[in-house]
Amino acid sequence: MIAYINSQFIEEEKAFLGIKDLSIQRGYGIFDFFRTRNFSPLFLDDYLNRFFRSARILRLQPLHTKEELKEIISEMIRINKIADAGFKMILTGGYSTDGYELSSPNFIILQQPVAMLDEEKFDKGIKIILHEYMRELPEAKSINYLVGVYLQDKLRQQKADDVLYYKDHHILEFPRSNVFVVTEDSKVVTPKEHVLQGITRMKVLELAKNQFEVEERVLTVDELKNAGEVFLTSTTKRILPVLSIDNATVGSGKPGKITRSLSEAFLAMERSLIKAS
Amino acid sequence: MIAYINSQFIEEEKAFLGIKDLSIQRGYGIFDFFRTRNFSPLFLDDYLNRFFRSARILRLQPLHTKEELKEIISEMIRINKIADAGFKMILTGGYSTDGYELSSPNFIILQQPVAMLDEEKFDKGIKIILHEYMRELPEAKSINYLVGVYLQDKLRQQKADDVLYYKDHHILEFPRSNVFVVTEDSKVVTPKEHVLQGITRMKVLELAKNQFEVEERVLTVDELKNAGEVFLTSTTKRILPVLSIDNATVGSGKPGKITRSLSEAFLAMERSLIKAS
Repeated sequence: MIAYINSQFIEEEKAFLGIKDLSIQRGYGIFDFFRTRNFSPLFLDDYLNRFFRSARILRLQPLHTKEELKEIISEMIRINKIADAGFKMILTGGYSTDGYELSSPNFIILQQPVAMLDEEKFDKGIKIILHEYMRELPEAKSINYLVGVYLQDKLRQQKADDVLYYKDHHILEFPRSNVFVVTEDSKVVTPKEHVLQGITRMKVLELAKNQFEVEERVLTVDELKNAGEVFLTSTTKRILPVLSIDNATVGSGKPGKITRSLSEAFLAMERSLIKAS
Repeated sequence: MIAYINSQFIEEEKAFLGIKDLSIQRGYGIFDFFRTRNFSPLFLDDYLNRFFRSARILRLQPLHTKEELKEIISEMIRINKIADAGFKMILTGGYSTDGYELSSPNFIILQQPVAMLDEEKFDKGIKIILHEYMRELPEAKSINYLVGVYLQDKLRQQKADDVLYYKDHHILEFPRSNVFVVTEDSKVVTPKEHVLQGITRMKVLELAKNQFEVEERVLTVDELKNAGEVFLTSTTKRILPVLSIDNATVGSGKPGKITRSLSEAFLAMERSLIKAS
């Protein structure tokens, strides 16, 4: 697989960063992640906008304009010839002379095949646990996943699939996904603040507005636990029903109607964007 | 300068990590930092013990035993021939296949000349600001400095030298140093929990116990602001008086007697450990 690093296309195994880079020294950097289907990037403008927004928050100067990035991505799609892939762009704090101050960023793009979830996985849903934590600078997609990676062991122990962060009784997000709740009065609600503005989250909000009452607001742990339906949204998982929270069953224990309806609408939206091959 | 990476001594500029390393992908890793004086590492056992403790907390398996590390460090001291140096050991999450799960760690040692502060700097003291934040897994010396590096800009704007974290009215630590307060009743106090157990902090506590009443406990922001003396401790800064907090002068605005006494005791302790050259 060919990767891209600091203006160079190179075999992924030969792509390195010097050990003075601020990602290695201080875990400082941002990234973004999008998918292609049938060689076509989905919602690319949205992802690139967020990439630039994250860079701005962390005061990292991107090496390329949006148009340049689109050309580089097109070139990688041509070179690697993978129809359905995930693209990860990473922008780090660069080679810091004192190991602390920002320098000229290093920039990486990685491409990898991405296996999407099948219908069976959707029907099975997922089991989650709660953990009190709010990401720092949550509006930025930073590379700081210390807590998320750390909690992987707890997930294994508790045989759970994912962990939902909350803070002061307000639910926030999963380490790599957003959360939606269908409240007792059938509103589709998702936390508004202190979370990453997921692109799938945004698209699902747009779709939901056509069919349901939708709210972006503070959501309590109690509302979550009393919800008829709960689901997550993410670039790789799209929409996935949450069927168990801290070992308590959600709703009927099966994917709810509104979740299924939104999942179908999202898949249809995605199909409408794929170029005919 | 020769660095050490995964069992190999190599020119620092030629020491790289592949872009799949979990430090670059997820900011996941730990490190430690100690000094040599006259080719002799100071408090090496304490630093190595903390390195292993941090690794254990983040579930990273060190590549070497303590004895092996001591040999590697001795070899680097011989090769690089720098009498007074800083050594940084970094242990990362390794080359993760899925960019999230831990793998076999990568291990790096970097050596660099270290310029210690002179007496003038001590007399001048530092100006600090407060910021509400508690590091995640604070007992581990992780590479996550997202907030610390991010706040560098605020420090420049406010013409401050450092930022002290606090949480729920309790003071905690600086991004890279511990804090001590001399209370109104002349006790030497430092926060006990939710902070990194600094090695200089530990040595200063030992020294202070010979001369003063000492407490490790919860310390409020109010106590900090009413303190007669405040100082920080760190490996590179040793003991440094804090003379201004959020633009309010501490005590007389000059280094206090207890701070000076502890600084002298620490320097004497350090001298006693240096091999005659």
